[in-house]
This record gives sequence, structure tokens and C-alpha cells, in this order.
Amino acid sequence: MGRTHSNGYKRVSNFFPELQYHPVLKAVCTRREDRVRAFANQWNYQSIETDWKNVISRDDIDAVDICTPNNMHAEIAIAAAKAGKMVLCEKPLARTLAEGQEMVNAIEQAGVKNTVWYNYRRVPAVTLAKQIIDSGKLGRIFHYRANFLQDWTINPELPQGGESLWRLDADAAGSGVTGDLLAHCIDTAMWLNGAIVDVSAVTETFVKERVHQASGKVQKVGIDDACIFHCHFQNGALGLFESTRYARGHKALYTFEINGEHASIRWDLHDLNHLEYFDHADDSIVRGWRTIHVTDGDQPYMDKWWVPGLSIGYEHSFVHQVADFLKSVETGEPCKPTFKDALQTQKVCEAVLDSATSKTWKDTDVEDFAN
Amino acid sequence: MGRTHSNGYKRVSNFFPELQYHPVLKAVCTRREDRVRAFANQWNYQSIETDWKNVISRDDIDAVDICTPNNMHAEIAIAAAKAGKMVLCEKPLARTLAEGQEMVNAIEQAGVKNTVWYNYRRVPAVTLAKQIIDSGKLGRIFHYRANFLQDWTINPELPQGGESLWRLDADAAGSGVTGDLLAHCIDTAMWLNGAIVDVSAVTETFVKERVHQASGKVQKVGIDDACIFHCHFQNGALGLFESTRYARGHKALYTFEINGEHASIRWDLHDLNHLEYFDHADDSIVRGWRTIHVTDGDQPYMDKWWVPGLSIGYEHSFVHQVADFLKSVETGEPCKPTFKDALQTQKVCEAVLDSATSKTWKDTDVEDFAN
Amino acid sequence: MGRTHSNGYKRVSNFFPELQYHPVLKAVCTRREDRVRAFANQWNYQSIETDWKNVISRDDIDAVDICTPNNMHAEIAIAAAKAGKMVLCEKPLARTLAEGQEMVNAIEQAGVKNTVWYNYRRVPAVTLAKQIIDSGKLGRIFHYRANFLQDWTINPELPQGGESLWRLDADAAGSGVTGDLLAHCIDTAMWLNGAIVDVSAVTETFVKERVHQASGKVQKVGIDDACIFHCHFQNGALGLFESTRYARGHKALYTFEINGEHASIRWDLHDLNHLEYFDHADDSIVRGWRTIHVTDGDQPYMDKWWVPGLSIGYEHSFVHQVADFLKSVETGEPCKPTFKDALQTQKVCEAVLDSATSKTWKDTDVEDFAN
Amino acid sequence: MGRTHSNGYKRVSNFFPELQYHPVLKAVCTRREDRVRAFANQWNYQSIETDWKNVISRDDIDAVDICTPNNMHAEIAIAAAKAGKMVLCEKPLARTLAEGQEMVNAIEQAGVKNTVWYNYRRVPAVTLAKQIIDSGKLGRIFHYRANFLQDWTINPELPQGGESLWRLDADAAGSGVTGDLLAHCIDTAMWLNGAIVDVSAVTETFVKERVHQASGKVQKVGIDDACIFHCHFQNGALGLFESTRYARGHKALYTFEINGEHASIRWDLHDLNHLEYFDHADDSIVRGWRTIHVTDGDQPYMDKWWVPGLSIGYEHSFVHQVADFLKSVETGEPCKPTFKDALQTQKVCEAVLDSATSKTWKDTDVEDFAN
Repeated sequence: MGRTHSNGYKRVSNFFPELQYHPVLKAVCTRREDRVRAFANQWNYQSIETDWKNVISRDDIDAVDICTPNNMHAEIAIAAAKAGKMVLCEKPLARTLAEGQEMVNAIEQAGVKNTVWYNYRRVPAVTLAKQIIDSGKLGRIFHYRANFLQDWTINPELPQGGESLWRLDADAAGSGVTGDLLAHCIDTAMWLNGAIVDVSAVTETFVKERVHQASGKVQKVGIDDACIFHCHFQNGALGLFESTRYARGHKALYTFEINGEHASIRWDLHDLNHLEYFDHADDSIVRGWRTIHVTDGDQPYMDKWWVPGLSIGYEHSFVHQVADFLKSVETGEPCKPTFKDALQTQKVCEAVLDSATSKTWKDTDVEDFAN
Repeated sequence: MGRTHSNGYKRVSNFFPELQYHPVLKAVCTRREDRVRAFANQWNYQSIETDWKNVISRDDIDAVDICTPNNMHAEIAIAAAKAGKMVLCEKPLARTLAEGQEMVNAIEQAGVKNTVWYNYRRVPAVTLAKQIIDSGKLGRIFHYRANFLQDWTINPELPQGGESLWRLDADAAGSGVTGDLLAHCIDTAMWLNGAIVDVSAVTETFVKERVHQASGKVQKVGIDDACIFHCHFQNGALGLFESTRYARGHKALYTFEINGEHASIRWDLHDLNHLEYFDHADDSIVRGWRTIHVTDGDQPYMDKWWVPGLSIGYEHSFVHQVADFLKSVETGEPCKPTFKDALQTQKVCEAVLDSATSKTWKDTDVEDFAN
Repeated sequence: MGRTHSNGYKRVSNFFPELQYHPVLKAVCTRREDRVRAFANQWNYQSIETDWKNVISRDDIDAVDICTPNNMHAEIAIAAAKAGKMVLCEKPLARTLAEGQEMVNAIEQAGVKNTVWYNYRRVPAVTLAKQIIDSGKLGRIFHYRANFLQDWTINPELPQGGESLWRLDADAAGSGVTGDLLAHCIDTAMWLNGAIVDVSAVTETFVKERVHQASGKVQKVGIDDACIFHCHFQNGALGLFESTRYARGHKALYTFEINGEHASIRWDLHDLNHLEYFDHADDSIVRGWRTIHVTDGDQPYMDKWWVPGLSIGYEHSFVHQVADFLKSVETGEPCKPTFKDALQTQKVCEAVLDSATSKTWKDTDVEDFAN
Repeated sequence: MGRTHSNGYKRVSNFFPELQYHPVLKAVCTRREDRVRAFANQWNYQSIETDWKNVISRDDIDAVDICTPNNMHAEIAIAAAKAGKMVLCEKPLARTLAEGQEMVNAIEQAGVKNTVWYNYRRVPAVTLAKQIIDSGKLGRIFHYRANFLQDWTINPELPQGGESLWRLDADAAGSGVTGDLLAHCIDTAMWLNGAIVDVSAVTETFVKERVHQASGKVQKVGIDDACIFHCHFQNGALGLFESTRYARGHKALYTFEINGEHASIRWDLHDLNHLEYFDHADDSIVRGWRTIHVTDGDQPYMDKWWVPGLSIGYEHSFVHQVADFLKSVETGEPCKPTFKDALQTQKVCEAVLDSATSKTWKDTDVEDFAN
């Protein structure tokens, strides 16, 4: 994720020149000096650090962006907030609800600017979905469904833990697909359709044991390989969510669909520049799902890029979030989702995992919020 | 459904001339004489009846096909079986598991030929899916998901009950989308992927009251407008099912997808001549989902129809089932799904509805079966 | 094609019971007695003939339907017309324009009811396209493009001539893809977009020699394996047409698209129940191609079939043409396309083949017509 | 295009750190000082120029990139070559074949490094198509078809000429869609399928007169609004090309398809991360078009970007060309397409326009080349 964020910071000024603030890449930090040096060189960071505490103690640094494995989020974020830094944090906010709550407390006490990288909100087609929904075109909402399907951990020889595979290690990651993938689906869902109030879930770990990269030994796998849940939204809609890393043929298939009384919308990350839209108000004989190619200047963010018909990619969502964050520094408005917003997603994730364990419905205690 | 079945009987001999037995349309029966006369005339039935008991007592009738609302299935089927008739019954088998069990008992005691119209098994693309799965190409199965989405009851002014809307009346239908739509999904799923062993479900009735056509009064709606459940299959796969009549933009979107270790398959009733297939054994740089246009002579049933590339439609699945039924009369083999097979689907439906009511997981007690 | 037509006659009364006239299958004729007997048996023809002249001389026969190879169309049609029979003829009308003209002369002199089986006009989605165009929604038309791509003759071992492969024999077929496939595209195009006034074409014969089934000898292939042409329509639109039997991966991919000032339409035979429609009048941020699933009761012919969302197939277009023909017998109106209409398509085909040979533009002399 | 190229130069070092040479943005030049200053500021150019001759005379500049309207290409490129600069030139190479030939002469005489921005070759899916074709999987090629459809000039009130609309002015652009859009299609086609040897074309100007931005007067429109041609390739394949700016509903729909004896490939710029592939060698019952999501590390260029399943966009093709250009400086190999390669495309464009004017077939005199 370091590359994705760095790219966001480096490109934003070229495409959003009207912004008042422009990011300066003061320092990059990871534990291994050779690697941080190479990375700094590649991305033109002005300095390197190998201890994150040094970053936080530096006066020339205004904002700290956390791209570590999940088990480091809380400690760094809390320290940064206490030091008065603005904090940007990769998702999920934390491994557990308790960790997340501490982070929110620290941030709020410090009163610092903050945001969490639920970047899919800023794919233009997804932002357009939000606009359409907010315009009221859908009417009463009946259904929301989303899934995030991958296939990269089917091979049982894949180890858990270690540098690139910490997502398979429960200690580092907190959970499996729930925190990694469903968290995205939940963030988008509550942004578009309001609070999820209760959940009933099932999880599965298909490969029960894997070699741990650290110990070299076969160990029990602690994460969820797959998770499915259904739920109620505060507005009365039924929700349905599924995520797995065992759906052969799907690399990163994040899709959502929302069905309203008057209209429906769906989207698919594999085809991210398009939005599907069905409007029952259309003349009956020519009514059908519309495929909107979201590349026109009057569609969200697209006045910044190329001419109509020319696609943008995954990383542009990060550029957009950087731009919106910088804008929020100008205006004083929060840059959504804030830590507090991300905590609501954390509540749902925790309820989901609890529900799967207890085989019962769980309330989420999500606060109602207008995002 | 009377038209669909009649069409099946009338066409089968033209397209399956090799069959030993050919159906003769001896009699059609409904309560209103004017309507049954018109129908008989349109479809060239040799005689009419207005009391189904007369049909069953006739010596010149070998097989009875039941296309009534669900509340009539059990009584007619049991009587027909006792009279030694072959029995073909519309799905779902019954309103309740208890009714279904009685029907199976009667059929087995009588030892008569029987089948239930889960016609989607015989859409050529679906039959091909079965062939591929049975060939072992998918390896261990991780996921099965299906949905059946419609949008025809969103209008709250639609009455419940009466001739064309008995599907909204709990007394006539037994349940809502669970028996009407999910039953199809469950039948296909267990045929393709084996027994469902437990379920956790949620149902919703979005429009709580509707005028009843019989009484003219506003009455509580007793059916489920929407139903979602997740489950475990006996083979360890996770299952996910959803059905609704409130998904604006979808008329009859029945889709399923199965993800195996080595390959995946998906299908969509709105595009019924195609099967999607992903094979991980393909060369990595040219690997992708294949869209198989199931219209070639070496694909199931397609040697009976037109030249490659030319589509068939929904009703052909009924012609295929008639052909397979007649073949089964020749061979003495059962014509799947039998009443007993359909009872397994009934068990899942009942467990689903119980789970939704009790908000707990429910075992299904489905017998393992190889279909 | 005999099966397709027979199916049309047999089904029409079940689905169009309101018609005043209903077809009776009096006789079927082919040269080989064993085969005609089997066919008659399979399709319930009342009698058989092995000499088509007998058919024409029978008093109990009102209409003659010609499904022979192209080289027999003219002789039979002319004789049938002279005998006062109604004549239905497979497409293309004839091998050459001269033959076609004679046929039209005979038909007009006899004043008999007639139609040519350009069946794709009566695929509901195509009929809907015609409705939309006639409503004026497209405005000025700029472009019309169509192609018909197949891949069944790539194998050079395939013989020419003989029973199932007469389409590869220039004597029997007249031409290759131009008469067989482009004729369909041209008929639809002129129906939807008016007369084609001039053409510039290229043809290719990829496999130059094939064994002839009759002689058993390797002979020069006389047909066009592929044909491309561009053209002007009378309304100023540019046209573009391509057909081939060497497009690996396409079985019967007939597509057309029409681009107007305000809206565009496209269609694809491989997905025949859908129509794509783009309307520039839609709100700009939610503008996109609509996929219309043409299965609703208010869409052409679909009140005759199943509930919304359920597909029909290829052969239904023939049932529709039978129904329209029978209706035209009631009303006295012509059943489009008539022989005279089909002659206009013949003119374009001839100009196309002449243009390919002479490597120059050719006028078509198509008469303007409102179909 | 200045933004697209600048973005390419700025990003290449972040994503291709292994390159020996890294671009430095020494100067940017346009005639209006206020605009060039703003642009330099936005994109971090070290200096500005308002006379291109100054750029060429500067010793600190090694490479000149030409993004002007077409009428300036020749003069600048020739001067830059004479000054010993490396030259990168926007497509089409020139307004006319004669201009292009002079440019090639100058470049070759100077012996300087050069390339032309036919960027679509370096969309990963297109590069993969080249790999597949070069592997011989397609066998003998029968058909190549491409189109480039837009809809942005339908409005007759749009002026010709001036800053953003010089593409409608024949003096500035040389031609309309032929040089602007078909040039892309032709470059890709000859790269993938070899030389085009002769062409037969038609062009149309739908809006005959437009206000000229410079004069403010209504003037005849000199460009081609639409162009269609068919052709022969040296390998015997038939080609078919179409381009227009009047295809309502298509913003930048560049598609190509190639049909070989054994396999076929197609691609679509609106969905640029996917490649469609049909392989007749697949098992017949599971044969179908494969949708390859070209985002894996073993697919062209994709080891530089994100994890599998995450899309890139239009501008990445420019980053790739910059990387390949810099690599070619290292290796001394040419960076395709060179000016000489682009001249072959120019020959086809000129033959196409001549053919349309004369209404005859024209030879192209393209030199055979292996690109």
C-alpha cells in the first residue's frame, strides 16, 4: 500500500492544481534500512526513518500516514495523535473494536484531522452511485447486497505470516476476509444505505493449518477464509454480504447492488469505470439496465482526467482521497470516513465475527450517521 | 403453467421421435367450464373435466399432471397415486414438509412413476454444468451461491389471492419466495453439489397488508416477500441463497455459481443459453472466464434443435423433461427429481422458514442422495 | 428448414388462438420416399409427395411453402403461383436477380398471397427496434452497420455440394455468404433504414478447391466465403456490412447497429431477447446504453408467450411469421416481406457481387419502399 | 496531450526504477506565456519557452516531444532532428504522406532516436494480443476488423478550428477521423497482422459547414466526419475499418478483432483491461470466448502496477511507452513505432483518402515490416 499512497501524494498536485496545500514527501519509514532507502529513492522521499517514533517526534512533519500491518495501527495512530499530527490510516481501522475505540478516543482528544483509506468511496462510479441515491431516485430501499471475491489463498502450500502474507496471520491481521475485504463492503454499504443494526454470520477456514513464515512450523490458521452474513439496515432494507479468498476465477471482484422501489444500482470493481442503473420511470418498452461509462466531465472527479470514454484505474481512488483530504484541511470539514466513521464499520465486523462464533444474531450498536 | 406443460407434451414427439411412448392429450381439467373448454380447444385436448376426481377415475388416462396452486398438490397427487396413475407435479412439491411426506408415502406405496417439475435442471447449459461437475474438473468445492430475483410485487396495490395472484396468499401458496423461487435454487444446488445440512435464514415481508381478492378486505400478508439464507453442504462447501420479488430491474434473474479448487461455473436464467466457466488449468496468460454458447450438437439436448449458434428458450426445458419422463417409462429408471428428491428440497425450505422465525440455525435432515 | 417451418405451422394455433385461419399440414414433399415418410410421420403431415408438381396440382392445398435449395425456388414458386396457390418461400428469393424478377412477375400476375422467410424481422427485439425507429426517436440517421459471422466452413476437408452442404456449391446456392447471410442483414437494414442506393464490395474465397460430393472430385469453389461492403442509404446514412464463414468463435453472430442523431440501437442474434438502446435525451450523469430484456407483455409478440424475464428462442420468429401470414390472409394486407420486397434485397446482393468482381461502385436500383 | 505525456515522464521512475535513464522535465513550450507558465507550474517543468526554436537550440535538452496540432509536426521534428535531438512525436506523424516522408528523411539522416505516440500498442491487453499472435496460436489469419467510434461532433453548432477544436479544421489536422482515429487502428492492425496492401474507402462529411473559430464565419468543413474502408493484408486476410464522430452513444469505442484458423482475439478500449480470446483447441463442450482480465504479474507491464484484479487506465499506456523509449536509449534498439513505421500508417491513410475521392481501389505501397 506504500506505493499506492505515495503515488496519491505525488500525483495530486498535477491533477488538482487548485488546492491550497500540496503534499511534500518528508520521510518514509520501515524497519529495514536497505528497503526504506530503496523505496525513498524510488519515490523521492526527502529522508528515511527506521523507527516510526522518530517520524512522530519530528517537527517538520504535519501528517502521518499509516500503511503497516493492522497490528501496528493503534499504537502509531495514538502516538501520532498525541503528538498533534494529522493521521491517515489504512483500513481496517484496527484488529478489534476495543483497539479502534482507543484510537478514536485519542484522535478526538487531540482534535487532529484524520481519515481512513476506504478508497472505494472515491471511485467515480461509486461516488456517482452516492449522488444518485442521495437525490432520492431510488425511493424506499429493499435490498443491499455486496461481495468481495478473491482466489489467491487456495493453494495450501502458501505460508501464513511474514512480509507479504501477514494477512493470513491472525495476530498481525486481526481477522481474515472480514477485516480485509468485508470492511470495504461495509464501509460503502453504510455510506450509501445507512447503519447496519444487526447481523447473522457464518465463517469458514478451508485450510486449517499452514506453515508460519516466522516459526517455520505448521500452525493452526486463525483467520476466516470466508465470511457470509445477512443483516438489517436501519432503513428496513435487508443486507447480504459475502467475502472469500477461495472463489476460483475472481481476483478482486468487489460488487454491490442496491434495489429501491423506483430504481436500482450496481457496480463491479473489475469494471470500475462503469455503473449499472435501472430506472423504472423509463418508458416501459425501452426500459432496461443502463451501463453508464463514468468518464464524462460532469461525473465525479472526471473533469480532472482525460476526455470522455477514456478509463482511469484503481489507484486514482487514492489520488481523489488525497485531494479531498487536502481540501478538508482548507475548509476545516472532516474528510470522510473519519476514524469515528471507520469505528462503526469495526462494530459491524466485530458483531459479524461474534455472530459466526456464537451462531446467533448480534446487534451492532452502530450509531446512526449521515456520511 | 398449464400452457407450458401442454406445449411440452405437444412438441416432444416432433423433436424426440425416437421415443417409444408419445403423449396423448386425453383431458384437461379446471373448475370453470368456459375456461377449460377454451383451453382444450386451444391446445387440442380430447376432452374436458371440471372435477379433478373424474380425471383420476378415468381408465383411459395413464398419467396425471398437476398444475394447480400448491394447496391442491397433496390431495390430487395422493388420489392419483392410489388410482395407479403416473404423477407429474408442479413444484414446490407441497406447502409444508408434512404434506410432502404424505405425498411421498402415497407414491411409494403405490409404486407409480413420478416426477416434479424442477424444469431448470434441463436447461441445456445447466445440464452441462452437471456434466462438468460430475467429471471432477472442479475439485474440492468451496462455495455455492444462487439467487432468484424478481420485481413484480413492489406495487402495494396488488391484491393477494385470487386467480393469478394466489402466490401472494399464504393459504394457497404455503410460503412466498421460499417455496416459489428458492425451491428451484435449492433443487439445482443439491443436484449439483449434494445435500444441504443446516441453514440460517432471514425473511421479510415488505408490504405487510394487501387487499385479499376473495374477501375484498385488507388482510395481513402471510408470505415471505424476500428470503436469504446461508448454509453448509455435506461436502463442506458454504452456500448462500437469496430470493425476492422486490429487486427492481430483475424480472426472473435466477443465477448460480459454484467455486471449486480448480474451476468455477456460473449461469444466469436471463441468458439461459450461455454457461460461464473458468478453468485454472488454462495457460496463465490466457486464462479467463469462458462464455460457452450451449447450442452445439454435442451439448445436452442440443442435437434435437437447430444449428449451432441458434438459441432456444425457457419452455424447451419442459419439453426435455417430458422426453426424459417418457424415456424413464421405457427404461424403468426414475425420472429425476422424483417426489422423494423433491421432498429433500422441501426439508430445506421448511428449515429455512423455521430458522427465519426462530432466528437460529436449523438442521435440514436431508438424506444424502446422488442425483 | 423444413423442421423450422413445420414447427411454425404446428404451434401457431396454440399461441395465437384468435386467428381466423389455422394451418393444416396436408402434405410434405421431398424426392426420397423413405425420408419424406419419416418426416411426415414425425411432424404429422397428412400425406406425402415425392414430386413437387403433384403438390401444386392438388386441389386440397391452398398454400405452398418452399424450403428447397435455392436453385429450385424459381421453378416451384412460379408454378405454384400459376396454379393460384399462396406461396411462402425461403430466403434468399432466388440465386440471381433475373430469377427473382421472374418470380415476382409470376406472383404479381397471379395475384396470390406471398411472403419470404426473412424471419429475423419477427424476433421481438428486432420488431421493437423497428417500432422505436418509426417513432422518430433516433432523428437523422448517420450509420448502419451489420455483420453475420460464422465459422463452420474453416475445415478444408469439408466437401461442397450434396445434401447438407449445398450451400457451398455455387450451382445450388447461387452465391455463398452474400445470398445466405448478408441477404438477412440487407433485408433487416432496408426495413429499418430504407433503400440502399449504391455499394462497394470485396469478396474472398479462402478455400479455393473442395471435393464435390456429387462427383467425388476436387473442384474449384465458386461461392464467396466472405463478403464485405460499404454503401449509401437513400436517407444519407453510411452502411457497412460484413459476412463470413471463417470467423473462428462465432457460430451465428448476426448483429446490427444504427446510430441516429438522438439515439442508437443495437442487437445481436446470439443474445436475441435483448435490445441495446442509447438515448441521448437521458439525464447526462446517468446516461448509458440500456439493455432491454424484451420479454414483457407490452413488447412485440411477447403477450403470447411466458411471464416477464423468460426467454424465447430462434424458432419463435417463424411462429410469428406464420401468425402474421395468417392474419394477412384475414385482412387482405400483404405479409412483409413480399416477393417484391425480397427482390429489392436481391438487387443489393447482385450489385454487391458485381461490385466485388469489377472492383467498382455499383448502383442498386432499389425502389424506395416503406416496409 | 501535454498532460498525458508529462504524466508519463513524471511517473515512469516510480514504477520502472530499474531504468538507467530517468527523464528530467527541462522545459515546456507553447506560444502563450501565461498558459505555459501555469502548465510548467502544475507539472514542475524547470523552465518555459514560448518559441519552440529556443527549445531546440538549448544544449541542456536531449529529447523533444511534439504535442502540437498536426500542422506543426513536420517543421519541429525536422529542426529537432537536425539539431541532433531525440524526437518523440504525437500521432499521426503528419498531415500528408509527403510531409511524413520529409520527416523520416530528416530523422534517418540525423540518425537520432525517435518514436511516435501510437500509445495503444502498450495497453497491456493489446501487448498480450501481440504475444499470442506471435506465438502462432491463431494459425492462418482470415479476418481483421477494427473500428473507432465517437459521438462528440454531432452538434452542428460546434465551431471548427481554434484551440480545442483544431481537429475539425482541415488545415490544422490534415484530415478528420482518418488521421485522428483510423491511424490508431491501422498502426495496431499492421503491428499485429502485417502490411495492408490495398484499400477501398468511403468518407462522409455529415455537417457540411461550420463557423470557423478564427474567422467567425461559416465555412465549408474540409475534414472527413466518418470513414470506412475494406482492404487486403499481405498475409491474405481481409480487413475492415470504420471510424466516425457521429456514432451516438460511443465516446471512444476503439475495438479490434482478429480471426485465425485456430483462434480469435478481440479487444475494446472502453474495457481496456480485458482481452477476449477464443481457442478452438479447447474441449468442444466447454469451448467459449474467454474474458482475460489482464492484471496479473505475468502479463505485459502488469508486474509494475497493483495486485491481480486491480485495473489500470488509459494514461498507463503512455507511461509504458516512456519506459520502453528510455530502455531503447539504453539498448540502442529502436523504440517502435519509429517515424519510419508511422510513415507506413501514413501511406495507408493517404491511400484511404485517395480511394474515397476517386471511388477506386488504391495500392498502399506499404513496405513489409516486422514490428
